[in-house]
Amino acid sequence: MPMSSALLTDHYELTMLQAALESGAAGRSAVFEVFARHLPAGRRYGVVAGTGRVLDAIEDFRFGDAELAFLRGHQVVNERTLDFLASYRFSGDVLGYREGECYFPGSPIMVVRGAFAEAVLLETVILSILNHDSAIAMAASRMVHAAGSRPIIEMGSRRTHEQAAVASARAAYLAGFSSTSNLMAGSRYGVPTAGTSAHAFTLLHGSEYEAFQAQIDSLGPGTTLLVDTYDVAKAVRTAVELAGPALGAVRIDSGDLDVAAHEVRRMLDSLGATGTRIVVTSDLDEFAIAALASAPVDGYGVGTSVATGSGAPTAAMVYKLVARDEGDGVLAPVAKKSVGKPSKGGQKAAFRAVEDGVATAELVTTVPGEAAPEGARTLLRELVRGGEIVGREPLAAARERHRASMAELPSSAHQLSQGDPAIPTVFS
Amino acid sequence: MPMSSALLTDHYELTMLQAALESGAAGRSAVFEVFARHLPAGRRYGVVAGTGRVLDAIEDFRFGDAELAFLRGHQVVNERTLDFLASYRFSGDVLGYREGECYFPGSPIMVVRGAFAEAVLLETVILSILNHDSAIAMAASRMVHAAGSRPIIEMGSRRTHEQAAVASARAAYLAGFSSTSNLMAGSRYGVPTAGTSAHAFTLLHGSEYEAFQAQIDSLGPGTTLLVDTYDVAKAVRTAVELAGPALGAVRIDSGDLDVAAHEVRRMLDSLGATGTRIVVTSDLDEFAIAALASAPVDGYGVGTSVATGSGAPTAAMVYKLVARDEGDGVLAPVAKKSVGKPSKGGQKAAFRAVEDGVATAELVTTVPGEAAPEGARTLLRELVRGGEIVGREPLAAARERHRASMAELPSSAHQLSQGDPAIPTVFS
Repeated sequence: MPMSSALLTDHYELTMLQAALESGAAGRSAVFEVFARHLPAGRRYGVVAGTGRVLDAIEDFRFGDAELAFLRGHQVVNERTLDFLASYRFSGDVLGYREGECYFPGSPIMVVRGAFAEAVLLETVILSILNHDSAIAMAASRMVHAAGSRPIIEMGSRRTHEQAAVASARAAYLAGFSSTSNLMAGSRYGVPTAGTSAHAFTLLHGSEYEAFQAQIDSLGPGTTLLVDTYDVAKAVRTAVELAGPALGAVRIDSGDLDVAAHEVRRMLDSLGATGTRIVVTSDLDEFAIAALASAPVDGYGVGTSVATGSGAPTAAMVYKLVARDEGDGVLAPVAKKSVGKPSKGGQKAAFRAVEDGVATAELVTTVPGEAAPEGARTLLRELVRGGEIVGREPLAAARERHRASMAELPSSAHQLSQGDPAIPTVFS
Repeated sequence: MPMSSALLTDHYELTMLQAALESGAAGRSAVFEVFARHLPAGRRYGVVAGTGRVLDAIEDFRFGDAELAFLRGHQVVNERTLDFLASYRFSGDVLGYREGECYFPGSPIMVVRGAFAEAVLLETVILSILNHDSAIAMAASRMVHAAGSRPIIEMGSRRTHEQAAVASARAAYLAGFSSTSNLMAGSRYGVPTAGTSAHAFTLLHGSEYEAFQAQIDSLGPGTTLLVDTYDVAKAVRTAVELAGPALGAVRIDSGDLDVAAHEVRRMLDSLGATGTRIVVTSDLDEFAIAALASAPVDGYGVGTSVATGSGAPTAAMVYKLVARDEGDGVLAPVAKKSVGKPSKGGQKAAFRAVEDGVATAELVTTVPGEAAPEGARTLLRELVRGGEIVGREPLAAARERHRASMAELPSSAHQLSQGDPAIPTVFS
């Protein structure tokens, strides 16, 4: 039985529900939209990630005995509201950008339609998931591009919340990482896992020679040996002496990685280990990866920077009411006028305009259901229909979608320097 | 039944275990220590948080059928290792700084002693928890100091992973926040929860008047009304008209909060609502809170910045082997020599030197079990003894400890500007 996601929610969602139940407005049709007013500072594109996890959270959003007992015991809401929650089940519709798709400021990433009472409750958990996973995927996508054809292992679990780590591994894989160190991400989401040993393993043994021998005995010569515990040059010689030219890889986790990679490559080649790969792993981010493009490196391991969004640990997505039935049965646009935080009323449709295979604009209109203009593709797809989840797909599909969506962006999207969004958002 | 924490682990912990089981080194006594080589850039003190959650994770670190089936199916480790994991249960000792205590570079925040095989497996999940929770608590502690006697509500759940949000609320409360918006943090950890309404509630209704009336009808005049959906001045008049001078509070969530707070205070006072509080909530961090010190503000709500560590989303704690039995029954210090990442061998003891009630130094020695020097207090306490958890305590105790530990730091600790650690770490 999956855990309920219903308390992963802000207190005020329930007090608003209570007041709306009493005012009679709770049952009015409403449309909420998820969008970001801006990308994280200087980023040129966003990446939608977490959609599949949102669908799980909507499915698990039920108030069972434990949840109701807490709410009653702490007098969060009154009995009438508890009755409503006891039978709560989202019965509305959700449209959304497919996972892996790129997005831009104002893109209507998710559209939630249903009775106000049903839709308002989902705000917090939807935003938590999309804001976290998209931030990680955005950072990971930049690293993947910087790495070119070289694989990247995600290994940031120890730098972030233990469950956020699992979602981070998923988001990084979706954005093109080749594998993760996180076993739960392997178990829960099928992300390939990888790893061999840490410095502690070398230090445990009486000598590096003894440690390497133990690792090769157990994991075979194709393993990756960590060569920077004491002296890199000595360690590389010991590694090849023990494993022979079949040695899979060596890992360097400290020092000047560019210099070290060149030295280790020369040494490996001179020892006949021309097929042995070099993996580097120390405090890498997209900039450090780009700087190593010409170094003889075969793969990267990235930890802290990917798990913390490389300077942007959260996306800036919000969940706003854009239309509601005021009581007369007509769904009318609404928007607040708060200083610096205006919102645009009305349910949106969105299209990516593409010319000669290159994206040129994000088109956002307030004509929901409108057909795609010529040369543009529709971005909003059905995810939930009448409470039924219809938008599930394998993680591999999202990974392939991201690759394709990235490939379509103009080349300015791939610059690591700070800049404007790669394509403009055109509202009409 | 709690979920197993055993797969919240890096792949290489298990391959190291496999190789050590085969080399015969797995059963050797080992000591691992958690410490940070540095504080996040410019921070003057660290805050230990997550200790209680680490104890839960150690208790739940069991490999059940599902976990073993995954590891077998994906050939992560061999059958001998799976047999070991099937009966795994940590039977060693853990010492640690108590939760809420301040820490400094090199402080031995946690000491894990046991067979290498047992202790190495805990690395990832211990670091995930401590690195995340301490980063949040550190940021929250600075905000609490900046707010003085004014309460702060944690409301960042939507900006971080949905489970990280629960831990963030716990860490912020520990550091002195008064409450959280996160209901799961209330249910799981007893953190007080708070919240009333969002802009969507106002927009749902035909008018602000109607929305305020609905909220007051349901939640009473002592509620907090959100006054910046359309026009703040008009909203404040409507609020007092409807609730009378008993109106609990108004919330301002946009614009220049300093200017707005002064205007709203004058208006409330002129309307006779002299007891109505003003709560502000827009993109606040410790600097913005400090800048509002002279504004007539009665409370703050903080979201993104606390849930993302206000620029430092992770602490830099590592888990390093510092001593091990090399096979001769003697526990000997070990340390790696990696460039830029040296570690100091030997199990540590730690004391906070205090003169006239003011902390003067963090004393770290390699004489474990040493008595505290005169005028210093012992920082390491027993948390786990022979696999038995002995260090559990109520969250309120950690909250009180943090208050006391903060009060003891020299005043330089409380400067928000970047600087050196407030007290030096003295190794001996």
